[in-house]
Amino acid sequence: MKLFFGQIFPEIIIDSDEQQHITKVLRMREGEEIFLTDGKGNLAKGTLVFEGKKVSLNVSEIKENLPDFSPKLHIAIAPTKNIDRIEFFLEKAVEMGISEVSFILTEQTERKNISIEKLRKQAIGASKQSLRSHFPKINDLQKFSEFIKNLNPENTFVAHCNENLERISLNALQESQLDKIEAYTFLIGPEGDFSDKEIQLLAEKGVKAVSLGNQRLRTETAGIFVASWNYDKMF
Amino acid sequence: MKLFFGQIFPEIIIDSDEQQHITKVLRMREGEEIFLTDGKGNLAKGTLVFEGKKVSLNVSEIKENLPDFSPKLHIAIAPTKNIDRIEFFLEKAVEMGISEVSFILTEQTERKNISIEKLRKQAIGASKQSLRSHFPKINDLQKFSEFIKNLNPENTFVAHCNENLERISLNALQESQLDKIEAYTFLIGPEGDFSDKEIQLLAEKGVKAVSLGNQRLRTETAGIFVASWNYDKMF
Repeated sequence: MKLFFGQIFPEIIIDSDEQQHITKVLRMREGEEIFLTDGKGNLAKGTLVFEGKKVSLNVSEIKENLPDFSPKLHIAIAPTKNIDRIEFFLEKAVEMGISEVSFILTEQTERKNISIEKLRKQAIGASKQSLRSHFPKINDLQKFSEFIKNLNPENTFVAHCNENLERISLNALQESQLDKIEAYTFLIGPEGDFSDKEIQLLAEKGVKAVSLGNQRLRTETAGIFVASWNYDKMF
Repeated sequence: MKLFFGQIFPEIIIDSDEQQHITKVLRMREGEEIFLTDGKGNLAKGTLVFEGKKVSLNVSEIKENLPDFSPKLHIAIAPTKNIDRIEFFLEKAVEMGISEVSFILTEQTERKNISIEKLRKQAIGASKQSLRSHFPKINDLQKFSEFIKNLNPENTFVAHCNENLERISLNALQESQLDKIEAYTFLIGPEGDFSDKEIQLLAEKGVKAVSLGNQRLRTETAGIFVASWNYDKMF
C-alpha cells in the first residue's frame, strides 16, 4: 500500500511535489493503484492517470472522516543542539501517532533556530510512511513564556530531572484518574533541563511534574519514550 | 556526574581510550571528581590523578554488585539498510535499559554486514551517558536459523506485520501471566518483514506473535517501542 499526500475536497488533486515523486523518483506507471490522503482524516483510493507532466487519480473509493488517534498527545520540546536528534524524535513520534508538536525556547535551550518547514515536511513523510490519514500539527518555534500562557493544567505535565522536587511516575499517572484523559500535553526540557525558575512557573500554574524513570534520558529519548507510552495506550 | 568506563577488580584502571578522552577532549583537571564503572554492576568514585600521560583514580568509594534492570530485555533485530537507523535504535534502547541486543540476518534483511565493534562502542557511550553501571551485551551478527536454535519459547515473542495471522497485542501480554516474566526476548524483522517461512518456523517452536499496534512502524521504531514498553515496566 503506497500512501501519498494531496487534496480530497472539494476535488481530488495529488500534491505537485508528490506528482514529481511518483514519476521521477518512484517511476510508477499509469494504472498503478495508490492511496491519497489530505492528512485531515480523508482517504481516496484509485489508479494513476498520466497526462503530460500531470498526474491525477482515477478514483475508485473515498473514505471520509476516518477516526483519529486517541488519546491525543501534544509534546512541547526544546530543540537539541544536534538537529538530527530532534528530527529523529519527530519521525519516531509521528510514526507512533503523536497529534501535535511544539518547539520551545527555554532558558537553557542551546539551539535558538530550527527550519520549521523542513520539520513539517519530515512529519508528512513519516505520516505517509506509517499510513496515517491524520497528520500531526507542527507549531512554530516559540518562547517558553509564550507557550505556558495558554496551557490547561488539568492535562499538562512537565518531565524534568530535578530529583529534589516532587514528581509522580508515569505509572502512577496510568493508575490514577489522569489515565482517563483524552488529550495530554507533555513539556520536555533541553539538554541542560528546565531552569528552577521555569519549573516553579509551571508548578504555580498547577502543572504536575513527572519522572521518566531512573535512567538519565537525553531530550529526544524522553520525547520518544512519552510518545511510546501514549502509543501503547492507543491499542 | 561524569561516568567513565574501566576496570574495578582486581584493581582500578581507567580504560586507555577514556584516559585520552579525559585529558584531550574534555580537558579535565587533576582533582576533578568522576565515577568509573566496569559495566558489570561495579562503580568507583574518586578524583583524577595525572602522572605524565597516565590518568588514574584516587578512590573515595566503591559500590559492588549494584542491582541490574528488571525485567531484562533482549531484542534480536535485523540490521536496516540505512545503518544510522539501527545505530539510533541501539542508542535509545541502551538509554532505556536494554540488557542484550542481537543482530540477525533474515531472508529479507537488506544489509548483510555491520561493524559490530562500532556498535559496541556506541552502546558503551550510551550506557555512560545514561549512567548505567550494567552495560548491555551486544552479540555478533548471526543467521536467523542459528539464532532460533537456542531460544526459550516461554519468554520469546516475534513482532511481525502479517495481519492474517493470529497475534496478541502488547497490552494483552501486559494483562496476562506473561507480565510476570523476568526476561523477555523480542524478534524484530527487517524492512520487508519476516518471511512466511520464518514466521512458521517460530510458530512451530511455540514462539508467540505480537502486534505492535495499528500503525506501520519502521524496524528501528518497532525496536525502540518495545524498549520503551519494557522501560516503563522497570519503574
